[in-house]
Amino acid sequence: MARTRATPGIDLHVEPAGRGVRKGLTDALREAVRTGRLAPGTRLPSSRSLAPDLGVARNTVADAYADLVAEGWLTARQGSGTRVADRAVAGRTPEPAPRRREPRRPVHDLAPGSPDLASFPRSGWLKAARRALAHAPNEALGYGDPRGRPELRAALAGYVSRARGVHADPERIVVCSGFADGLTLLGTVLRRRGLRSVAVESYGLDTHWNLLHRSGLPTVPLPFDEHGTDPADTAGAGAVLLTPAHQFPMGAPLHPDRRAAVVDWARRTGGVVLEDDYDGEFRYDRQPVGALQGLDPDHVVHLGTASKSLAPGLRLGWLVLPPSLADEVVSLKAEGGWSTGVLDQLTLAEFITSGAHDRHVRAARLRYRRRRDALVAALAARAPAVRATGIAAGLHAVLRLPPGTEQSVVRAAARQRLAVHGLARHRHPDAAGPAPDALVVGYGTPPDHAWPGALDALCRVLP
Amino acid sequence: MARTRATPGIDLHVEPAGRGVRKGLTDALREAVRTGRLAPGTRLPSSRSLAPDLGVARNTVADAYADLVAEGWLTARQGSGTRVADRAVAGRTPEPAPRRREPRRPVHDLAPGSPDLASFPRSGWLKAARRALAHAPNEALGYGDPRGRPELRAALAGYVSRARGVHADPERIVVCSGFADGLTLLGTVLRRRGLRSVAVESYGLDTHWNLLHRSGLPTVPLPFDEHGTDPADTAGAGAVLLTPAHQFPMGAPLHPDRRAAVVDWARRTGGVVLEDDYDGEFRYDRQPVGALQGLDPDHVVHLGTASKSLAPGLRLGWLVLPPSLADEVVSLKAEGGWSTGVLDQLTLAEFITSGAHDRHVRAARLRYRRRRDALVAALAARAPAVRATGIAAGLHAVLRLPPGTEQSVVRAAARQRLAVHGLARHRHPDAAGPAPDALVVGYGTPPDHAWPGALDALCRVLP
Repeated sequence: MARTRATPGIDLHVEPAGRGVRKGLTDALREAVRTGRLAPGTRLPSSRSLAPDLGVARNTVADAYADLVAEGWLTARQGSGTRVADRAVAGRTPEPAPRRREPRRPVHDLAPGSPDLASFPRSGWLKAARRALAHAPNEALGYGDPRGRPELRAALAGYVSRARGVHADPERIVVCSGFADGLTLLGTVLRRRGLRSVAVESYGLDTHWNLLHRSGLPTVPLPFDEHGTDPADTAGAGAVLLTPAHQFPMGAPLHPDRRAAVVDWARRTGGVVLEDDYDGEFRYDRQPVGALQGLDPDHVVHLGTASKSLAPGLRLGWLVLPPSLADEVVSLKAEGGWSTGVLDQLTLAEFITSGAHDRHVRAARLRYRRRRDALVAALAARAPAVRATGIAAGLHAVLRLPPGTEQSVVRAAARQRLAVHGLARHRHPDAAGPAPDALVVGYGTPPDHAWPGALDALCRVLP
Repeated sequence: MARTRATPGIDLHVEPAGRGVRKGLTDALREAVRTGRLAPGTRLPSSRSLAPDLGVARNTVADAYADLVAEGWLTARQGSGTRVADRAVAGRTPEPAPRRREPRRPVHDLAPGSPDLASFPRSGWLKAARRALAHAPNEALGYGDPRGRPELRAALAGYVSRARGVHADPERIVVCSGFADGLTLLGTVLRRRGLRSVAVESYGLDTHWNLLHRSGLPTVPLPFDEHGTDPADTAGAGAVLLTPAHQFPMGAPLHPDRRAAVVDWARRTGGVVLEDDYDGEFRYDRQPVGALQGLDPDHVVHLGTASKSLAPGLRLGWLVLPPSLADEVVSLKAEGGWSTGVLDQLTLAEFITSGAHDRHVRAARLRYRRRRDALVAALAARAPAVRATGIAAGLHAVLRLPPGTEQSVVRAAARQRLAVHGLARHRHPDAAGPAPDALVVGYGTPPDHAWPGALDALCRVLP
């Protein structure tokens, strides 16, 4: 229950009824406490504040309060005001919801998909928020452009052009509430255009396949071989969802020949490529692979997110749209109401333009690279049968296991309360070809102090 | 274009290719500037920072920069680093989007629907954000409970119970991105249950009707008479959307007999009442009408929002759900990805529990009441033929006009660049019965300094 701290005037809804003002008020307050609407500990307004709200004399409120204190429903203490007593509440309506059973939390969390939340730049973010709020025009706080704030679109255009090789025009950027919101927007627009399915990679996230399916677009998996995803045969789908810079979860960039092939396909057929650039900032051994969108801004939608570079809880993502799709996506967003809070948008814009974002990403890249190196070294020393792949970039690695051992290793990890994913859960249900045994290990997830323990726990469950 | 302020290490994506490292780098940078990917004014990283990123010698980068400065593509100035020159960009790909023609802004804005954005409590909000961010656990920044942060759900449960008479359990509150998001969630769930339509009031917002229609639920208007909306005949719809505390835009609370009748209907038929409590905090002459949900928490969904009490740009709303709907709404929200940023959620929780929210609402109520009084006084003095109705609450009034004059008054206002709405635009296209001539005037919208001028402009266009 949220307790209200000392407040001179607070709102209290009460409807006095029946014979006599004092009795009506007393009855109404008693009923509110008895039924649990006013929870134990709730602070009531002072009689001086409530009396004019109700249009009654101050003494009437004071008398009603005194009656209820005498009856034990309220307590009155000097300096802490009048509160609902901490007593049993009878007949609360409706029955309180059963508390959800929380899943037992893992001791060590190496599930992929989350950055190190402990390294979120809290003070830098707050500083940016202060500057952003100080400079924001009043109209920024209203219903605004469905594409998002112009300050953020300008900052993002500069950033993704410079750092990711994207051809970005602020007029064709749409801010959305994380990747899921962006993919839902695109799925809905493509479905309205008459598309019947979307080609996806054989490995990926079931949440993305489900989002497209909900938009009316079933997914069909592309072949996957030793060179990674092969987009040659899209099985008649009019759109392809790819992770070109860093295949999730396998970890390789899309082969250069296939980058060219998928762009050729899009040009030849009028197809659309959806580029999921979820962690393009994090490549360790050379500079990041540039965005596929740079090859053909007329056929590739670039989807970026702050979920890996900053934190998923911000729910900030963006689309860089080709001219042919921009109007439809913006109209759809306008129809559905605008969904992304402006304060975080303005704050991210300030965070980027001040240079704080580049500093944060570079520091994070260094920290994750050290973890990656520690993982590789620990495997070499303690589990030489296990080969780490997909380790040139990103916040996770794929550990190849001896055939037939994936399930037993995942079960052993669960017994140790170590969260890791088996590769099987990231395989599309309709994928063909061999299904290697492997673990997907998110080394970005634990905070720094928990990382060595998590790594040790991992080595203990490996064959 | 977003300029980056002094930054020691910033990311730059460039792919050197062809003969010779220096020539390859120079060509790649020139191409990035020539095509407009690197916009004029973009700051480049120092050679010391870029060289290790690319795996080349520092002098190679310095030489490439020097070549391009000599060619006029870059500029180098002591203290401001190397930047892309402010020169004409040739062959930018794709064509820059045509800038949207902004609609001519009104000089005086009395359109309903927005609070006074200038009175958003910026410093109080920032203070709450600082406290919230200081106390948030790391896990709050991750993917979280689809219902929203527990801190906010607890604070909202306490607040709507105390101030609005709602029976609220934090377990059955779902935080959403404004009213539109909440209505879309509910529409989708009701459609999945097999509902075919939703009954709505004869007067309301077309955006709400359109949102329901998009969810597959056409809307049918309820009769409207001198006592307001009559929910007796829902025309077979399984759900009813109402504004019981303050009919939008007509302004009266739902008649007590009809409050009882709609709850009886819901119990008898298993129907669902959607209670849009958009501005329940703002009632001036007595205390607010309590939420309809308090009469029957098992059949009424309470929809609240921070858009009127704080600012629409926050995109924060909430649903208080009956037990029978809670699981379906939460599952749907989980499927679609979580859409509301956690930082604003934590900040609002702190803002409420600290008492700052009650103080803000009470101060705003006083300010809006003064405006309402000024409006009524000005009409009495300057437009005695015009009667203001629906003025006991809220941020807008309905000004009844002589029959047949609404369109001409709206046109006269447009010529004066005064934004007001004619009542006709808030009338459901299928509504029956007489259609009175009136203006809907949002007196909450202008900032304090602009309010007297707006009021004067209004009086000048009235008959």
